[in-house]
Amino acid sequence: MKNILIIGCGLLGSSLVRGISKKKIAKKIFVYEKAKKNILKIKRLKLPGIIVNKLDDAVIKSDLIILCTPMSEYKKVILKINNHLNSNQIITDVGSSKLKSSEIIRKNLNKNLFWTSSHPIAGSEVSGPEYGKEDLFKNKWCVLIDDKKTNLKHLKFLKYFWRKLGSKTVTMNAKKHDEIFSITSHLPHLIAYNLVKSAQDFERKQKYDLIKYSAGGLRDFSRIAASNEIMWRDIFFDNKNNVSKAIDLFIKNLNSFKRDINSKRNKSILKKLIQTKKVRSKIIKLKQDINRPNFGRD
Amino acid sequence: MKNILIIGCGLLGSSLVRGISKKKIAKKIFVYEKAKKNILKIKRLKLPGIIVNKLDDAVIKSDLIILCTPMSEYKKVILKINNHLNSNQIITDVGSSKLKSSEIIRKNLNKNLFWTSSHPIAGSEVSGPEYGKEDLFKNKWCVLIDDKKTNLKHLKFLKYFWRKLGSKTVTMNAKKHDEIFSITSHLPHLIAYNLVKSAQDFERKQKYDLIKYSAGGLRDFSRIAASNEIMWRDIFFDNKNNVSKAIDLFIKNLNSFKRDINSKRNKSILKKLIQTKKVRSKIIKLKQDINRPNFGRD
Repeated sequence: MKNILIIGCGLLGSSLVRGISKKKIAKKIFVYEKAKKNILKIKRLKLPGIIVNKLDDAVIKSDLIILCTPMSEYKKVILKINNHLNSNQIITDVGSSKLKSSEIIRKNLNKNLFWTSSHPIAGSEVSGPEYGKEDLFKNKWCVLIDDKKTNLKHLKFLKYFWRKLGSKTVTMNAKKHDEIFSITSHLPHLIAYNLVKSAQDFERKQKYDLIKYSAGGLRDFSRIAASNEIMWRDIFFDNKNNVSKAIDLFIKNLNSFKRDINSKRNKSILKKLIQTKKVRSKIIKLKQDINRPNFGRD
Repeated sequence: MKNILIIGCGLLGSSLVRGISKKKIAKKIFVYEKAKKNILKIKRLKLPGIIVNKLDDAVIKSDLIILCTPMSEYKKVILKINNHLNSNQIITDVGSSKLKSSEIIRKNLNKNLFWTSSHPIAGSEVSGPEYGKEDLFKNKWCVLIDDKKTNLKHLKFLKYFWRKLGSKTVTMNAKKHDEIFSITSHLPHLIAYNLVKSAQDFERKQKYDLIKYSAGGLRDFSRIAASNEIMWRDIFFDNKNNVSKAIDLFIKNLNSFKRDINSKRNKSILKKLIQTKKVRSKIIKLKQDINRPNFGRD
């Protein structure tokens, strides 16, 4: 690999710049970032990338191009880079939903080109290049999309690339990806936003000062509900069919809990409360979270 | 203060034993625990308390008695200790809901006696004496219940007691307490249980192995959903009116989110997603959570 171009240098983009440099995966790392505020930060951070003001040249010179912008920017970026690309170049992204973005890519990318989609399961409630970390992807899953039109050579290279950064890779099609992540990621985020919103509504209505008592549970949700709003709007909109189904399942189950509570159905509620514990043990065993009470906070 | 009796020695009870000993608040600490498994653990841990097999004597000898059992045990315990108590003894508990437990106490406690209810906002998803910590209550809120029949002398002592353990104290009536914590603690726990249950249902139905991708959000909820089922059943049942109202508010808001998503209402959803961020900043400012991305896990 000679040169890599990172388009969009926030949390993920800047982590890629750092990781690629650390692992010496590229000769040159080009960085394209639209927001002036972020460019200033990148300069101040002395990130090991070459900041470019225009995409054309950097696109031509790069063997791998990684989109790290919000998904709602994909179309614009594709229309800008389309005519500078050739079919040997590997193009990927790090977006969190895949069906809708594949559609946008298919519609707008020149027909002779290939796009191989990635989704590293790594992120945070904070955004911006100052929060990036060279080992953000280490020991994390990276899902690679393998659909009918996938270029297998490019897919193979991307497996190598993400593994170089420390990730574990898995391939699946876009449909399965969007179904799985509607449950493990998109619904949890929506629920967290919704819980915090409900607490705010309640606080306003009751005129109670309640946020200071959030250590009993609410604080955990508030972290997730502080995530980037543009990114999450894009995900909710792009994966709306699966998210909508997930909401329905969630409300159905919540109503069942409500009936248990209102009728004090002892056996039924205990069965539910006991069963969910197993998931935590499984998550710890799979090393998807740290094994310390309260995330080791207190 | 001469002697303190801790009834029920799990996470909270054992933290009290440790903290009281560390801060030298009592001459003797008596510990009553029903579960043989826990008694063995307490002995192995060499906790600084005197294990008693019967309550009678220890009750008579104690100036402060603290119930740390599940709330569904209160009635049984009261009937056991009633006739050994006098009105100078301070009796409290650490239960997480207050209206229903006050009712049980009022009904069953001998008429000449006083009970002053406490709720330390401290806990964890793990339970058992081995997880207790001497500083569990440090910098945490402890809510003390001040109702019509509260003995103000006892209340004053309990404020001193919890502050000695490092807590910040606040007084409110049981009604307000149960309303506030239905939103900041009880609903979040129910939502976490419900989310994990929904993920399990989805996994079973779709035959997808999805728990391994839980780092994108689900893992946070799984921690809370691993909390003690007896404690949480008691809370949900005891505070069912408020919890039920909280569920209704939550579902109303979730349906509004669903409409935003299905109709791609950009302004409406962004307003919601941006507003919730403020709560996180407030929580951090109030020192109710640590100020590190991802709780400093990664």
